[in-house]
Amino acid sequence: MAVKLVTIKEDILKDNKEMSALLKARFNKSKTLVVNLMSSPGAGKTSTILNTIEALGPAVKTAVIEGDITSTVDADKMDAKGIPVVQINTGGACHIDSAMVAEAVADFDTEGIDLVVVENVGNLVCPAEFEVGEDVRVMILSVPEGHDKPQKYPLMFIETQACILNKIDLLPHTDFDMEAFRKTVMSLNPKTTIFPVSMKTGEGLDAWAAWLKDKVDKKKNG
Amino acid sequence: MAVKLVTIKEDILKDNKEMSALLKARFNKSKTLVVNLMSSPGAGKTSTILNTIEALGPAVKTAVIEGDITSTVDADKMDAKGIPVVQINTGGACHIDSAMVAEAVADFDTEGIDLVVVENVGNLVCPAEFEVGEDVRVMILSVPEGHDKPQKYPLMFIETQACILNKIDLLPHTDFDMEAFRKTVMSLNPKTTIFPVSMKTGEGLDAWAAWLKDKVDKKKNG
Repeated sequence: MAVKLVTIKEDILKDNKEMSALLKARFNKSKTLVVNLMSSPGAGKTSTILNTIEALGPAVKTAVIEGDITSTVDADKMDAKGIPVVQINTGGACHIDSAMVAEAVADFDTEGIDLVVVENVGNLVCPAEFEVGEDVRVMILSVPEGHDKPQKYPLMFIETQACILNKIDLLPHTDFDMEAFRKTVMSLNPKTTIFPVSMKTGEGLDAWAAWLKDKVDKKKNG
Repeated sequence: MAVKLVTIKEDILKDNKEMSALLKARFNKSKTLVVNLMSSPGAGKTSTILNTIEALGPAVKTAVIEGDITSTVDADKMDAKGIPVVQINTGGACHIDSAMVAEAVADFDTEGIDLVVVENVGNLVCPAEFEVGEDVRVMILSVPEGHDKPQKYPLMFIETQACILNKIDLLPHTDFDMEAFRKTVMSLNPKTTIFPVSMKTGEGLDAWAAWLKDKVDKKKNG
């Protein structure tokens, strides 16, 4: 049973990688930067997307793909702001895969869209294994989750190019150890960039938005 | 591919249920109450276990099974307090299953143990589908995760008998809507009990510990 399962998982990941490559080719054609945004439930993916779009301004044309097990709570928030949004309901699945994104964008013209943010299902484990046609993988950890999380869920920290540390406004009310956090993250992934932010107060938002804007520009002009 | 996958998943869940039944029989023999404790990463499973054991006092003999993808961070915390603990490292898997627990307790005599708490992998999605030989399923949501989580991750709220709402000390610093939260949880699962607690200040701990103590006593004497 164990061997059979491992083989099936390898097949799934291989199929997913192939579909992801097709998606990448499609997004490359329209010079659209695709970000796969991952975190635990409630770390602040939706508010990060809303604030980032505002910080980038109207010059960066952005669309959002919302991945949820069920419900359209987050997509409705995007829609209320006039942001183009496509909803994926995974029907129980704990992560988004390339096939779901391919289906989501089948009727969606990304010509003229500079940035697509894929908001993954809230899960610090499984999404790290599945590409979704992205250029950049970004994760969010929030301060109340604790500074020991990189040690306990290392793959997500290893497989991402940026780590947004959200809810720093709660630092005075928790025992989060910033130095220990930085040290563990950097030992796992020396190439990542950590962005301490508060999506509530806006602190740190500019540095993160500038990093992302640079990637958008490079994709557009590169 | 899709049908094949669905069939495999059904097989896995069926195998898991059978193994869970065997585990239950074993724990029934020693009259040990088994709790499957689930939550997102960082919601407070470990501190809940430590505080609960202290609140129950030495009259309730408790052991802990620690489920982690990697690392022994939490098991070390239990061990430091002299609590009998068995570590499961899932090696990447995002949830504990019955086979893992069976292996963990193979050499562990539960005779004289009143309570076993299984600390699941931090994940609000997948663990809800896998029994681990438990009598009681308990989940933790923490205030900073937000009151909309029951709507977005309903299965976990439906499949549990108690919902600990942790970190209520952070209520003044967040926009958590307690009434909306209660309403959604109760609409999903009218039979559950919500325990608002702060594992930092100890607020609400007694009510939760009393609920659990009652279940331990019933198992022991029933």
